[in-house]
Amino acid sequence: MRMYDIIEKKRDGYSLTKKEIDFFVQGYTEGLIPDYQASALCMAIYFQGMTEEERVYLTMAMAHSGDVIDLSRIEGVKVDKHSTGGVGDTTTLVLAPLVASVGVPFAKMSGRGLGHTGGTIDKLESIPGFSVEVDQDEFVRLVNENKLAVVGQSGNLTPADKKLYSLRDVTATISSIPLIASSIMSKKLAAGADAIVLDVKTGSGAFMKTKEEAVKLARAMVSIGKGAGRETIAVISDMNQPLGRAIGNALEVKEAIDTLQGKGPEDLTELSLVLGSHMVVLAGKASTPEEGKKKLQENIENGKALEVFRKFVQAQGGDPRVTEDQSLLPEAKYQLPYMAKKSGYIAEITADEIGTSAMLLGAGRTTKESAIDLSVGIVLHKKVGEFVQKGERILTIHANQKEVQEVEAKLDESIRIQTEQPEIPVLIYDIVY
Amino acid sequence: MRMYDIIEKKRDGYSLTKKEIDFFVQGYTEGLIPDYQASALCMAIYFQGMTEEERVYLTMAMAHSGDVIDLSRIEGVKVDKHSTGGVGDTTTLVLAPLVASVGVPFAKMSGRGLGHTGGTIDKLESIPGFSVEVDQDEFVRLVNENKLAVVGQSGNLTPADKKLYSLRDVTATISSIPLIASSIMSKKLAAGADAIVLDVKTGSGAFMKTKEEAVKLARAMVSIGKGAGRETIAVISDMNQPLGRAIGNALEVKEAIDTLQGKGPEDLTELSLVLGSHMVVLAGKASTPEEGKKKLQENIENGKALEVFRKFVQAQGGDPRVTEDQSLLPEAKYQLPYMAKKSGYIAEITADEIGTSAMLLGAGRTTKESAIDLSVGIVLHKKVGEFVQKGERILTIHANQKEVQEVEAKLDESIRIQTEQPEIPVLIYDIVY
Repeated sequence: MRMYDIIEKKRDGYSLTKKEIDFFVQGYTEGLIPDYQASALCMAIYFQGMTEEERVYLTMAMAHSGDVIDLSRIEGVKVDKHSTGGVGDTTTLVLAPLVASVGVPFAKMSGRGLGHTGGTIDKLESIPGFSVEVDQDEFVRLVNENKLAVVGQSGNLTPADKKLYSLRDVTATISSIPLIASSIMSKKLAAGADAIVLDVKTGSGAFMKTKEEAVKLARAMVSIGKGAGRETIAVISDMNQPLGRAIGNALEVKEAIDTLQGKGPEDLTELSLVLGSHMVVLAGKASTPEEGKKKLQENIENGKALEVFRKFVQAQGGDPRVTEDQSLLPEAKYQLPYMAKKSGYIAEITADEIGTSAMLLGAGRTTKESAIDLSVGIVLHKKVGEFVQKGERILTIHANQKEVQEVEAKLDESIRIQTEQPEIPVLIYDIVY
Repeated sequence: MRMYDIIEKKRDGYSLTKKEIDFFVQGYTEGLIPDYQASALCMAIYFQGMTEEERVYLTMAMAHSGDVIDLSRIEGVKVDKHSTGGVGDTTTLVLAPLVASVGVPFAKMSGRGLGHTGGTIDKLESIPGFSVEVDQDEFVRLVNENKLAVVGQSGNLTPADKKLYSLRDVTATISSIPLIASSIMSKKLAAGADAIVLDVKTGSGAFMKTKEEAVKLARAMVSIGKGAGRETIAVISDMNQPLGRAIGNALEVKEAIDTLQGKGPEDLTELSLVLGSHMVVLAGKASTPEEGKKKLQENIENGKALEVFRKFVQAQGGDPRVTEDQSLLPEAKYQLPYMAKKSGYIAEITADEIGTSAMLLGAGRTTKESAIDLSVGIVLHKKVGEFVQKGERILTIHANQKEVQEVEAKLDESIRIQTEQPEIPVLIYDIVY
């Protein structure tokens, strides 16, 4: 078998066999196939696409290119949740204790990642004492006991995907649906999930700018998941404005606790319930999403979800009192109001610009080595569709520096106020089974 | 400027500017742009094509990536001839003295190249004493005096094309019309031609298998030539069966001498006259191809063309008596007849299989380091359309080995005999101005 023939075959629009895809993925991971052939193949895939079968082969080959996590010692159906990424996306922090509270095991391995804010682990580490350094046995014991634990990703997961993604990133071959879908799904499979719920974001703050693109990606991932023998469901949700009101690490933990107490932002609560309801069904803890949603709502109202969160924090060394006293979380030195420059309806709060503002404050990482400031960020007091008076506070900047002109300039660009009442954006566009 | 943006732009179907193409060609030549980005761009070009302007920019950038030959000290209009490559293509050896005999300067720099037989230089070196090691001043003097000289290629010509071609060769991006056309034309421009006559081969023994593809490539090259300010004409000629009767180095020199004496194969004679007539017009030595052709025919009949060849051989150290006594050329030890296995009309003599047979005998190089046997090859006694009796000789194998079963097996595959009279293949399909 020759890589040349594989490139040529795909270039000419033919489907690759499992053997050919395995040959490529293994050869590339081992360094036997050079970058210049891999990038030519990726560009050919960009133009010619991949069949459903090819996507499954590619996903499986990448999933098995390194370690595959074995979660078999954890009781129950392990349902993983993945978001394609947005701004102020606190759902995992809400969802995890929520579904755990109805008996769905939530065994999360998470990375730190780059972005506007930190990843789930960074956010959790803003709780004093909290640690993700838990060994395998302890991890299994914790999930079996409290149905919830989060550990830092260890081992060599999907090295093929890591290498290929880096290459695609510099050869303009990222935005190919089969390649994006197989990249995401390979990581989910390697992480040992039995079933997967995907939150595919769409809008100005998401990778998929239009609903149509988001649905395409969702369909591709669902089809791969099923092809690999995993029940998979995708929710298409809005990312034109940030989700919830908080953007920042400790700020999002506060918001998650509020939500578990039943007083969180409407959109975050609703999305958590929808995603959670499908997780509950996939785990066999409810027979319909409606039944699942009802159970989850009950556990917010009766405090059981918050209690799971409290135990989870305590079990991983964190101070459980944060659930009652949020002032235990790190707070930024300055709370600076950002006021409306005129009266009118908020027509736009561009998610990615708000994300960039949080990043400028120090909430996220630009490189793997960057330090992260857990206390800083932005809290929105108004969302799209709400009316503001000139001089009224739209948001608060939580900063450790007094001078925030650069951030304010960014915010000026991202917030648009108009006299006519705008349409309220839809939160959930579609669900792909 | 970033290479990433250039790849993305081409991927999305936009045209690249001169600045962007120059940035790529210079950066790639200097090693600042990695292979994996160049191959991704080539694949994007494969799918999205290039406008006429982009092709000219790419050709000019590659032509100027290294040395550009200055032929200004040679009097007259320097017309270069290029063939896209075929089997038994002896035209350069015939054309060169032929057009020189009517005053068109033929200043050829030639490489050795890989292929079924050697290149023009290898063929000429089968003449005892002949040498292409001529210095620049001597080269200019020889062309001005006798209108003909051939030297080995020296200097660093089109390094960008060399590097890019090697990359395309392993990434399935050779067969892109804009890339093939700019590769060929960049070499012609760097070699200092004032005008160019192209022989674009089509058929089983050519790179362009169909007439339509050949015309596309011809149009692309003619348009680049004109865009670069060089009069360019392309002749589309047949390469389903070998051109002429001889395939092999010394064997082709013999055939060229025969042709200059007016007793060469009809197809080789005709193609040389057609290509030559256009060269004569471009050089301003005739006002129409018809007039040019007549002059060339006259110089075959009156012996002037052969005389130019004789002087040329002598001037470059070769034994001029080869024009009268062909036994001075190297001869293979064995002349083995290959007989018809049944009676009928020759329907097919597949050019590339015959080429491979010559290669098996040692007439060509597989790698740059391979030795080449100048004496061996194949001489056809019959061509497509002719009738043979069972047991009649179709061709002669000139070999330095007695056992040629492998060659014969290849020939069995390449020659087809049938009872119905086949169509005689057209020699010249089209001329693109």
